[in-house]
Amino acid sequence: MAEHTPSDGDRPDEFTLIEELFAPLAAGAGGAYGLEDDAATYTPSAGHELVLTMDAIVEGVHFLAGDSADLVARKLLRVNLSDLAAKGARPVGYLLTAAFPRAMDYAGMRAFARGLAEDQRRFGLHLWGGDTVATPGPATYSLTAIGEVPSGRVIRRGGADEGDDIYVTGTIGEGALGLLAAQDLLPGLDADLGAALALRYRLPEPRIAFGLALRGLATAGLDISDGLVADLGHLCRVSGVGARIELEAVPLSPGVRAAIALDPSRFERALTGGDDYELLFTASRADRTRVEAAALNCGLAVTRIGVASGEGPVFVDGSGTEVSFAHAGYTHF
Amino acid sequence: MAEHTPSDGDRPDEFTLIEELFAPLAAGAGGAYGLEDDAATYTPSAGHELVLTMDAIVEGVHFLAGDSADLVARKLLRVNLSDLAAKGARPVGYLLTAAFPRAMDYAGMRAFARGLAEDQRRFGLHLWGGDTVATPGPATYSLTAIGEVPSGRVIRRGGADEGDDIYVTGTIGEGALGLLAAQDLLPGLDADLGAALALRYRLPEPRIAFGLALRGLATAGLDISDGLVADLGHLCRVSGVGARIELEAVPLSPGVRAAIALDPSRFERALTGGDDYELLFTASRADRTRVEAAALNCGLAVTRIGVASGEGPVFVDGSGTEVSFAHAGYTHF
Repeated sequence: MAEHTPSDGDRPDEFTLIEELFAPLAAGAGGAYGLEDDAATYTPSAGHELVLTMDAIVEGVHFLAGDSADLVARKLLRVNLSDLAAKGARPVGYLLTAAFPRAMDYAGMRAFARGLAEDQRRFGLHLWGGDTVATPGPATYSLTAIGEVPSGRVIRRGGADEGDDIYVTGTIGEGALGLLAAQDLLPGLDADLGAALALRYRLPEPRIAFGLALRGLATAGLDISDGLVADLGHLCRVSGVGARIELEAVPLSPGVRAAIALDPSRFERALTGGDDYELLFTASRADRTRVEAAALNCGLAVTRIGVASGEGPVFVDGSGTEVSFAHAGYTHF
Repeated sequence: MAEHTPSDGDRPDEFTLIEELFAPLAAGAGGAYGLEDDAATYTPSAGHELVLTMDAIVEGVHFLAGDSADLVARKLLRVNLSDLAAKGARPVGYLLTAAFPRAMDYAGMRAFARGLAEDQRRFGLHLWGGDTVATPGPATYSLTAIGEVPSGRVIRRGGADEGDDIYVTGTIGEGALGLLAAQDLLPGLDADLGAALALRYRLPEPRIAFGLALRGLATAGLDISDGLVADLGHLCRVSGVGARIELEAVPLSPGVRAAIALDPSRFERALTGGDDYELLFTASRADRTRVEAAALNCGLAVTRIGVASGEGPVFVDGSGTEVSFAHAGYTHF
């Protein structure tokens, strides 16, 4: 036990941080050894393979300087879980690097750990290890999420065939327009719609349950982090197919619709701005009923937006006219 | 393929970076899918469990601002491999977050990737995935290393018994005094010895092969990152034992001996300063011959420095007098 619990304004030492904030997050994972060893151990369930992904977020780049630490922690975990969801993997554990800025006090760190606690409970995984360091720069967080999937059943980017249906979960554009809302850059938008958009930017929803349902059903899939247009391009390129997307079919939330009504140029931003963390996937036309049933079962809106084809990707409007986009997508670097 | 290869001073985009610098590092790992998917997959060898660790380094905190990027990359990989070595694990893969500062040019990034290439070839593992981001702050790198070990044979911190011998690999204090050498803070020291010390700080040597030899032989083990005194404390606390260490037995390199000869207070720094990345382990007295044979087999100096006991840890000098240390060890936060 630490000698004393630091007060909110204190700067605790590394061992206090681990013991008070992080070890409780590891309590449910036997192989984490209470974070008292150099490394964690894990044996995948029989007949399963591991799925591993790692994403980082930097203050002022991937989240706003004023964002509350619990939401930042949850976003960090969720953007990684979204990758697991896209692969049909069940999350089991994660490792975390937290580079806390020197100005961050113990209250902020506790909020960060509280956010992790809430979401790891919700998504059923545990902290296995990691590193806590101080940085003279902006808060920088990196997370490795580990999931598992029955051997050989991981959903890849490269399995789409010509003629497959193309679907997205949820709605598109809330990440990109939510960032504008969070920065008060959507003047004239109804305040409640703006708040909902901003929250959605700060707290994406990884589609874990639906990802599990897509095993053996999706022919290809990924999560939309670079924007629908760019990520569709990735899926098509790796699968070696084209696509025809009906822009009128792309599902938009009321907030996104309202923001676009105020400024139609935002439609392009919604489709190319990234940070959606919805799933984009393909499935055989013969499996339409199964896809619909899986969506219904998860209580999740899933929308067919087009079809994999021999050319493109091509985006067409309601009159069948091809539309092109100036900026294909957000690049993270 | 990228449209063109950036020149040294360019700032390449994320996709160029991945394709030109990082995808070649993933070429040997089938489950990395050429870094073209959201996540990697891996199935441990039959009868093995996974060992996972994650450590981060920040410019100006864990390495010096002027350090060349290839050495920084190798240190990043090596400090993680050192954790695997301490657990008796064979490295298989890693995931990397590279937050490159905005001022870093393509030449620096290429050097970083070159360092990784060299060491992953040497230690037999591959890049599985990760994230490349830009940061307005200092260079910040985080790495998750994955190894495997026959199920149930991982070396833990908590297995030492009273009466076990206590050993260290290599020599102690080169990390701590090497940092001083790298900062030109060892005036009067022979230049060659100083250069060797500084290199050792910049490029630790993970004891992978010897770690494998310690499976079923070490009763407990860890790698010395916080300093011999602090890490011995960790091992003893988790194992529920004390220790008696003969300070005259602690192995020191010629450079460390020379630096201490110039200023005897540096002996304490050598034992408490950290960054050694040597293994500290315990083994049954009955296994002395086996430990010696394993060391000989690996061509590695291994030194018995004391014994696990019912009290302490206690450090005694050549006359049997107990010595205490003002600062137990480096805290990373």
